[in-house]
Amino acid sequence: QVTCGKKEEATETKIHPLTRRIWEVIKEKQSNLCVSLDVSESGDLLDLADKLGPYVCMIKVHADIVKGFNVDVGLQLKALASKHNYFIFEDRKFADIGKTVSMQFSGGNLEISKWCDIVNVHALPGPGVIAGIRTVRRDVGILVLAQMSSEGNLLNESYTKSAVELSSANRDCVIGFIAQENLTNDSFIVATPGVHLSTSSGDLGQTYNSPQKAIEKGSDIIIVGSGIIKSDNPVEAAENYRKASFTAKILEKCALYS
Amino acid sequence: QVTCGKKEEATETKIHPLTRRIWEVIKEKQSNLCVSLDVSESGDLLDLADKLGPYVCMIKVHADIVKGFNVDVGLQLKALASKHNYFIFEDRKFADIGKTVSMQFSGGNLEISKWCDIVNVHALPGPGVIAGIRTVRRDVGILVLAQMSSEGNLLNESYTKSAVELSSANRDCVIGFIAQENLTNDSFIVATPGVHLSTSSGDLGQTYNSPQKAIEKGSDIIIVGSGIIKSDNPVEAAENYRKASFTAKILEKCALYS
Repeated sequence: QVTCGKKEEATETKIHPLTRRIWEVIKEKQSNLCVSLDVSESGDLLDLADKLGPYVCMIKVHADIVKGFNVDVGLQLKALASKHNYFIFEDRKFADIGKTVSMQFSGGNLEISKWCDIVNVHALPGPGVIAGIRTVRRDVGILVLAQMSSEGNLLNESYTKSAVELSSANRDCVIGFIAQENLTNDSFIVATPGVHLSTSSGDLGQTYNSPQKAIEKGSDIIIVGSGIIKSDNPVEAAENYRKASFTAKILEKCALYS
Repeated sequence: QVTCGKKEEATETKIHPLTRRIWEVIKEKQSNLCVSLDVSESGDLLDLADKLGPYVCMIKVHADIVKGFNVDVGLQLKALASKHNYFIFEDRKFADIGKTVSMQFSGGNLEISKWCDIVNVHALPGPGVIAGIRTVRRDVGILVLAQMSSEGNLLNESYTKSAVELSSANRDCVIGFIAQENLTNDSFIVATPGVHLSTSSGDLGQTYNSPQKAIEKGSDIIIVGSGIIKSDNPVEAAENYRKASFTAKILEKCALYS
């Protein structure tokens, strides 16, 4: 019994505080849905964030495709995050040496570090890519790209293994992976993009998975873009995706990690 | 003799028109130097581009670290490029699926596609990363990252081989590599960053090479950042790097490819 108690404590201390908060929000909102707001105007971005905020645990953005995006727009997105209780994930896929990443994260027109909760990085440049984030802000959550779904991608098994190793060595910052399946059987979050209720192929080599299939394979957070924002009724679509994604397995994980 | 003539013709048709123009500029300016202008203010960027323009064949920027960078700043950089006869290389390291890359290349505050001559991409996402660029602009030159110098990077031999294969299959857009050495013995340009006359280690895992060593290993274009812009006299430093980089081997290549 004592041993068990110790084990549980050890497990608990390994859970990143942001990971815990994310699972709390998932549990509270019964939503493990992340909507990807790939729009080109900041007005549309904020409008969709306000409309879809109640249905999601996370909003993913590419600030660099949005005209007029600046720190004020970022802070408005953050204000909406407080209103609707979602996390902001900037899908920047940092992939440079540490010194450059630190400038890309903190500087320029976007000042990403001022408004986001989560960013992602490619493991490709090595640990410097994480050090570049950490040197600017220690409390941001990093998702490491461990797998991609695009045709002909070079993230083979050996690459994925290295990405997992890099993540495991940096648990103070890394909260999980962008991946297609469970990779570690621990508190690392698996966020899966390219999810669509009607699975098919997109433009320029993009491929899609259903929410059910993604969760069966071990995904925790379901990232949906066009299936929601290109829908005639994005709010209804978001609710459909929320329901399809919040399964018994996810509820179990809420109990385990929140 | 006829066979020789045919062979030469065949070689000639393989050379990308932009590659040929780059070697012409290198020959004319006796400079295979690319200066990396990692500054955070657009005024400083344009000022340095005007001062250093005469000494370089190429200027490398990270538009996303520059406050106030927009398409007007990009076009001013382009006007200076016409004045001083250099190429503009945006070091974006695109690393996403094709659809996203096309939006990142054309959209947002930066509108990269409107003012740059050359961009780089990671081979990691597969051919879609090149298709995403091509769909916006067919005449931009792509450099594929085939090697990196940062500590613990995951660009091993097998990865480099795949990056070369991807590049060879897309010679309509790809003009060469970011690499530490010659990889193909053909008209693909090798551009090498992390070069410094006093070799040492930088912050966050960055490592440096001398221009001589880089060129011995097969580099064509020497990319220098801090060695020039952090110098007390950037113009003098640029001239020193130009002289150190423009070797007999580079002159031979000018004859071969311009």
